[in-house]
Amino acid sequence: MDNNVVVTPWEVSGDLNEKAYAKIAKEFGVKIIDEALLSKIKAVTKDLHPFLLDGLFFAHRDLDTAIDSYKAGEELYLYTGRGPSGKMHLGHLLPFIFTKWLQERLGVHLLIQITDDEKYLVKDTGWEEIQKYVKENVADIISLGFEPSKTHIIIDSMHAGILYDNAVKFAKHVTASTVKAVFGIKDSENIGKFFFPSIQAVPSFLVSAIKKKKVRCLIPYSIDQDDYFRVARDVLPKMGYYKPSSIISKFVGSLQGGGKMSSSSPTSSIFLDDDEKTVRKKLMKYAFSGGKDTVEDQRKYGANPEIDFAFNMYRMLSEDHGATRKVYEEYKSGKMLSGEMKELAASTISRYLHELQARRKESGSRLHEYLFKPERFG
Amino acid sequence: MDNNVVVTPWEVSGDLNEKAYAKIAKEFGVKIIDEALLSKIKAVTKDLHPFLLDGLFFAHRDLDTAIDSYKAGEELYLYTGRGPSGKMHLGHLLPFIFTKWLQERLGVHLLIQITDDEKYLVKDTGWEEIQKYVKENVADIISLGFEPSKTHIIIDSMHAGILYDNAVKFAKHVTASTVKAVFGIKDSENIGKFFFPSIQAVPSFLVSAIKKKKVRCLIPYSIDQDDYFRVARDVLPKMGYYKPSSIISKFVGSLQGGGKMSSSSPTSSIFLDDDEKTVRKKLMKYAFSGGKDTVEDQRKYGANPEIDFAFNMYRMLSEDHGATRKVYEEYKSGKMLSGEMKELAASTISRYLHELQARRKESGSRLHEYLFKPERFG
Repeated sequence: MDNNVVVTPWEVSGDLNEKAYAKIAKEFGVKIIDEALLSKIKAVTKDLHPFLLDGLFFAHRDLDTAIDSYKAGEELYLYTGRGPSGKMHLGHLLPFIFTKWLQERLGVHLLIQITDDEKYLVKDTGWEEIQKYVKENVADIISLGFEPSKTHIIIDSMHAGILYDNAVKFAKHVTASTVKAVFGIKDSENIGKFFFPSIQAVPSFLVSAIKKKKVRCLIPYSIDQDDYFRVARDVLPKMGYYKPSSIISKFVGSLQGGGKMSSSSPTSSIFLDDDEKTVRKKLMKYAFSGGKDTVEDQRKYGANPEIDFAFNMYRMLSEDHGATRKVYEEYKSGKMLSGEMKELAASTISRYLHELQARRKESGSRLHEYLFKPERFG
Repeated sequence: MDNNVVVTPWEVSGDLNEKAYAKIAKEFGVKIIDEALLSKIKAVTKDLHPFLLDGLFFAHRDLDTAIDSYKAGEELYLYTGRGPSGKMHLGHLLPFIFTKWLQERLGVHLLIQITDDEKYLVKDTGWEEIQKYVKENVADIISLGFEPSKTHIIIDSMHAGILYDNAVKFAKHVTASTVKAVFGIKDSENIGKFFFPSIQAVPSFLVSAIKKKKVRCLIPYSIDQDDYFRVARDVLPKMGYYKPSSIISKFVGSLQGGGKMSSSSPTSSIFLDDDEKTVRKKLMKYAFSGGKDTVEDQRKYGANPEIDFAFNMYRMLSEDHGATRKVYEEYKSGKMLSGEMKELAASTISRYLHELQARRKESGSRLHEYLFKPERFG
């Protein structure tokens, strides 16, 4: 991997271009999603989500196995998650939007793990502050409109009663040497961080553990989380379960370009509770542009939409793939200017957030509908 | 410490004589219980348990502070535990007999932690087998006659919902370097073992955490568990709690002499469900004797009762300290022979176990009376 590119669960930085993603995929040992696999997916989902068509979900582990077994009528469930270390911003929506689409197309259960324990262990943030983000983030996730009867939110601190004994069974198969090698954790770091990969692994076999039979799990995640599931894939067969399958996304660049969007700086992200004025201001003032510096150059040479924040957010939130392709071409060719791209993104984002914020008002009181209850699987 | 003496939570071996205990105490940094402290204890307990008079509970950390604050009317509770890796034998009773006495004299709450998670993580034993021992060991402990309204059993796997978030808060203060240095855990060992000291620490501050105020905790334990509470004493003040106090016992030697009694070999221990015939046979056939090899030598030189299994068990279970002192003197002087000592021990043990086994029949169904419920402290 390029020397300047770092991708771990705790740090993502460097110039994540196409070449870098190809190198990461090779180094991590994940497979690129090719045309044949897209056809296989389409055979069960009927259509392909824009994130697949545009290569935002670009890699996988045993996705073909998961689809084959689903097609053969075997049970499958999805698992994704969120580390509640701050307010949610647009970049956080990518896996949830995609997972929701996948869940609807497949009609399967989905576990969503909220890793408050990890965020407390790795960040310099107090427990109460993390709990505040848990509450806010969960309400944000609920606002995305997941089907409550099939969507099960696991909050690590709240669900420890069901997670911990399974994590202990997992932990017995994982040495400190392994987590040091895989995650780069050091002896000077806390013992909670050493143990945590066990907790993050549990949802990948929890349904199997409850049902006392092998059930396949498919995990959509962004590439920085791959370490966790590489370890889980080693261990689960030793516990008598299937290896989890995965479908892996790139990052959507931060407002200032490059790396993962961060929620620690107020100007690096567009938050889910930003109003239209703030969205517009952040886009105009801070958003990294793939366009040229002058109108003349933009008309002449065109933009690089792939690294353009406004284009990426517009593409993520637009449901019309034909329209986004057209915008892509026009922006790339120079027919469309950077300011026009930002205008289009501002109106798309604002419209999306307006609807999300309206649903968000009800979400706080709907947690009970979504909380994971083992008896639903028993 | 002597080169042949090893005392860790996972291994106890070597010749544990008086000199060795004095050295261990010095090395671990625990204080010896002296006459002044015994008087201070007696001022609140009214009498002194034989284990104190005979120096079986021989060391402490801040026991004086705990007693002073108890005397001043401050709240105090006790915490002890059991690792359910096998059937319980006589040697396991020492801390429970003493803790029960202390609880009755002080009229305080007692938490008993059953560390099934640790035993699973460190032993080559399956989860189901460990759970069988949990059930049996808990029934054995209940048979000792603890007051149910003040005695609260915590089974780690069952109580993870209340333990885990507190353990995470503790773990944030403990590095892998610390547990490697203190416990001698190696990188080749599993990550559950690295994390476990956090779980064992929780009962030492759990009442404080629930009540949201500092409550003092006094922990009776055998010296091999000291590592855990040394770490807890470092961390608890950083979490805003008191350092736990402790009162520390020696081991009662194994049937074959030396070290800690083991429950892994059927002939190394007298189990709580052994019948009279078995007890007698084990004593006569396997019990390590502190007496001389011939009657003539025993009459002439006398025995060393301190290392004599039969004497130690007799002393532990006899409630009459005057009688045990008399036996001690007669056996030591040679007036009493090894066979007579074994006879006396056999009848004392059998009588004790007979009563225990009678109560044991009801104990299995009484678990609900003893299970820890946070609302009792809320």
